[in-house]
Amino acid sequence: MTKIGFIGLGTMGGPMSANLLRAGFDVIGFDVVPAALERLAGEGGTAAVSAAQAAAEADVVITMLPDHPQVEAVALGDGGVLDSAKPGTLYADMSSIRPATSRRLAEAGAERGIRVLDAPVSGGEKGAVDGVLSIMVGGSEEDFAAAAPVFAPLGSTVVHVGPAGAGQTVKAANQLVVGGTYALVAEAIVLLEASGLDAGSGLDVLAGGLAGSRVLELKRTSMVAREFAPGFRIDLHHKDMGIVADAARDAGVALPVGGLVAALIAAARAQGYGQLDHSALLRVAENLSGAGGGAA
Amino acid sequence: MTKIGFIGLGTMGGPMSANLLRAGFDVIGFDVVPAALERLAGEGGTAAVSAAQAAAEADVVITMLPDHPQVEAVALGDGGVLDSAKPGTLYADMSSIRPATSRRLAEAGAERGIRVLDAPVSGGEKGAVDGVLSIMVGGSEEDFAAAAPVFAPLGSTVVHVGPAGAGQTVKAANQLVVGGTYALVAEAIVLLEASGLDAGSGLDVLAGGLAGSRVLELKRTSMVAREFAPGFRIDLHHKDMGIVADAARDAGVALPVGGLVAALIAAARAQGYGQLDHSALLRVAENLSGAGGGAA
Amino acid sequence: MTKIGFIGLGTMGGPMSANLLRAGFDVIGFDVVPAALERLAGEGGTAAVSAAQAAAEADVVITMLPDHPQVEAVALGDGGVLDSAKPGTLYADMSSIRPATSRRLAEAGAERGIRVLDAPVSGGEKGAVDGVLSIMVGGSEEDFAAAAPVFAPLGSTVVHVGPAGAGQTVKAANQLVVGGTYALVAEAIVLLEASGLDAGSGLDVLAGGLAGSRVLELKRTSMVAREFAPGFRIDLHHKDMGIVADAARDAGVALPVGGLVAALIAAARAQGYGQLDHSALLRVAENLSGAGGGAA
Amino acid sequence: MTKIGFIGLGTMGGPMSANLLRAGFDVIGFDVVPAALERLAGEGGTAAVSAAQAAAEADVVITMLPDHPQVEAVALGDGGVLDSAKPGTLYADMSSIRPATSRRLAEAGAERGIRVLDAPVSGGEKGAVDGVLSIMVGGSEEDFAAAAPVFAPLGSTVVHVGPAGAGQTVKAANQLVVGGTYALVAEAIVLLEASGLDAGSGLDVLAGGLAGSRVLELKRTSMVAREFAPGFRIDLHHKDMGIVADAARDAGVALPVGGLVAALIAAARAQGYGQLDHSALLRVAENLSGAGGGAA
Repeated sequence: MTKIGFIGLGTMGGPMSANLLRAGFDVIGFDVVPAALERLAGEGGTAAVSAAQAAAEADVVITMLPDHPQVEAVALGDGGVLDSAKPGTLYADMSSIRPATSRRLAEAGAERGIRVLDAPVSGGEKGAVDGVLSIMVGGSEEDFAAAAPVFAPLGSTVVHVGPAGAGQTVKAANQLVVGGTYALVAEAIVLLEASGLDAGSGLDVLAGGLAGSRVLELKRTSMVAREFAPGFRIDLHHKDMGIVADAARDAGVALPVGGLVAALIAAARAQGYGQLDHSALLRVAENLSGAGGGAA
Repeated sequence: MTKIGFIGLGTMGGPMSANLLRAGFDVIGFDVVPAALERLAGEGGTAAVSAAQAAAEADVVITMLPDHPQVEAVALGDGGVLDSAKPGTLYADMSSIRPATSRRLAEAGAERGIRVLDAPVSGGEKGAVDGVLSIMVGGSEEDFAAAAPVFAPLGSTVVHVGPAGAGQTVKAANQLVVGGTYALVAEAIVLLEASGLDAGSGLDVLAGGLAGSRVLELKRTSMVAREFAPGFRIDLHHKDMGIVADAARDAGVALPVGGLVAALIAAARAQGYGQLDHSALLRVAENLSGAGGGAA
Repeated sequence: MTKIGFIGLGTMGGPMSANLLRAGFDVIGFDVVPAALERLAGEGGTAAVSAAQAAAEADVVITMLPDHPQVEAVALGDGGVLDSAKPGTLYADMSSIRPATSRRLAEAGAERGIRVLDAPVSGGEKGAVDGVLSIMVGGSEEDFAAAAPVFAPLGSTVVHVGPAGAGQTVKAANQLVVGGTYALVAEAIVLLEASGLDAGSGLDVLAGGLAGSRVLELKRTSMVAREFAPGFRIDLHHKDMGIVADAARDAGVALPVGGLVAALIAAARAQGYGQLDHSALLRVAENLSGAGGGAA
Repeated sequence: MTKIGFIGLGTMGGPMSANLLRAGFDVIGFDVVPAALERLAGEGGTAAVSAAQAAAEADVVITMLPDHPQVEAVALGDGGVLDSAKPGTLYADMSSIRPATSRRLAEAGAERGIRVLDAPVSGGEKGAVDGVLSIMVGGSEEDFAAAAPVFAPLGSTVVHVGPAGAGQTVKAANQLVVGGTYALVAEAIVLLEASGLDAGSGLDVLAGGLAGSRVLELKRTSMVAREFAPGFRIDLHHKDMGIVADAARDAGVALPVGGLVAALIAAARAQGYGQLDHSALLRVAENLSGAGGGAA
């Protein structure tokens, strides 16, 4: 039976590892938070004493970490995944990080005979719990095929989008479009309300036509009601817009709308909305127009 | 039987008047282009010699004109609709113009006993031909109800969104979101392609998740293939972004993303893409990054 | 002796007409505010009963009005300047309005033998009082030469910048650059302060190098001290950014930075800073980053 | 006599080390390019065999390197400056890098008894040759005083702007304002020319008023003439806008205008203007409006 070393058992990694256990995989996990390890053990997994142990004893290693410095430390550091895993091990980093780091990881893995995939996800905590994440995978066709059974209990959409780093690039493009759509809907609400209209009725019309989007479908009611419980937090989307910027810089392209949306998300964080859902971008739009009392 | 005076028998007004005839209404129409009048007559309508005649002999007047100067001339000018229509006439201006002009029209109508609605549409020429436009109506509840039978053969979605001018404001919000969505998808494509990926596969993933939108659903294949046959032309969207700017100024709000999108659409026009579909905003995004040969 | 008809005796026109009187010109003035007429009379001018009288009795007509609707009414309306002035009269509109209206005015004047110049100014109330305005003049070389003696007591820099409308276009370009420079300095201050530095010292360095500007020279101390007494009010700059947008649209160009700066100035107005100096754009920048308590 | 270890003898470091030699300092230098070492020796300096040797034998160490990865390698790497320099050594990193790296360097130095300053410069190659750079220094008051004699032959303006990292932050603010000013002047030129005016005359007026700036003073003639010989290259300004973004992210602020200017500078690079002067931002502005043939 395939043994999975799962490093990073937090908000996302916790339920993901549970889904792997339920699907019948052996899971040996590691996290710096003891409670996460206890929970894993309670669910039938094995708590490792280090990332190195989890990597060394597994056939497939998965990391699910906050950002690239953590991935660099855990994967590339002394006693890290690449140092510890057996040659031939399949290693899927499912963290959302910048594409350049994923490519570097893949190169470093290749030198050691480790087969690396980047496999960031979208769908949030709920998607992780329900096992219905979208998984965007970069790497070789062969390694993707080998990893497919492991991804199956985690996501409902699992797509091989290109070579190493491609998963991260597609994830970046996704976050660019999602963030921008929130910014547009926010400006539409501000315009409608400041014009004295019922924003809900106006958005109903938009949702039914060419302006329609998943964001309008799922979030227009809560946005108009100013309900911003996450969902996906501004702080995380702020991190992701940094990845978009890095990806654009690496690719040598200019993304003016992306840059402006990143500034507005940074503003949301600076204004204290970091822990709210990313739809709270509406607060930035309305504060800008004084509607939220920005000027007292 | 209700007699409709239809002024402006062009790309949109032509098929709309035909649909009204097919639905059994009497239509007396006017246009400055003789061929449009001949076509109307051939379809069973009556060609008027002037806008004044069309307005004077009708129970319901509709105008479908390019922009606010034409509406001001035809509706408010000497011998215009308000001068010529009988008191009690219902008058729906279905042009897309700035909300302030629609409100002024409604006030001027009220002084003369003419019941004015603003009723801009979305859905383009195809929607007009098929009678499946979205119609956003501003005005009184009572006048909206009275106009409903006339709108029925023209649109599949007919919504009363508020008082005078509200139809235009919702239309403006719609165009803001649609234009912005094209800009975002364009930047996503530029990022994906410059990163060496197949944009089509990447957008497939986006379309299936929170980044999904009607624009992605309908246009991602043609955009990646650089097929930009209209559809809805850049020139018209450029006009509409001017309406968004006017509406924002009147409402006293700041729309930074809207302003940037307007600049990009203006660039599309300046670069010679005015007659292409608005999805040609992709050309601006790729020229900006040199991908389209912008810098030789 | 040259007799000047001066219409619009407000914040700018008042001191300008006084300077013309001091320079020895006869001035017959008109304003809708009686106190302005009394002040003119007290300074040795003649109060006209109407704009028509002021225009009819003068050799040179000057209008100094808030915006294009007032100019259109006073110049083009029944009994307006063009109706009333003698053929051959020189007419300088010194209001800041959109170039297209100035061009229309020049054409309408030409049909009646009135020689029209557009001659907007910069320098504010203080420049008007001190007679040191910058005057940007559009029109024929010959008419510019004829008007030079009249402009002399009003401005220290009087430049003929091109044909009809050119004065307005240069004024628009000026306001674009000034507004944008404030926005940049504001963002620099926000960055320096949020980084824990003394913004004053930092800006001293910037002022001495390639980042140096008149804005930094004159306003950096007051900006850092949050002293925003006008000067030139946000409300007026907001109006002027509308002129920039109109000029760009007429010229068929895309000005993305200009569009964003316009949105930020609109935000300043929406946040309640309309009566403050335009350097109060700093408030928008700091509210955006939560530094001004935007998010409570 | 003070002995200076100078690491990085390129376009900037070459002439700077020459100026130190001329001022009577002993200079032991290192560069990976042999020709740079030969030139130093020819000017009376000593060629070291490694950065470690240069650091070990000096009283004051200066690094002048392209970007933060090089600084990290040279300063923090095994056998780097901090490993090799004697306790008590004064170390000024004069590279332009992100403030966070400078702060990290200062902390690492403090642990080893090395006194670290960040001292980025502006003024370009010409300023380096002429010894008239502006030097923005972060670090302790005492270390700044100790380094003053070494900075004296290099710069005409040497300012202590705050603690560790402050020099980089002020440099970032400087580049934000300079880049933005070029973008604004570029848009002004595009507006003036597309309106049929002589941009040179128009900019003359702007330069004399509140829109005036060092950029307008020094570059308006060459910009209108499309002369873009560097000066300071787009590629370097692109790097610097990355530092601005990093500094803003660290400071937790949103800089929308800065973000847009960064995108336009990225576009300049993507369009192939990386080796031109940063005033070539005009090319981006005019290509955007089709004036430069962007759309063929």
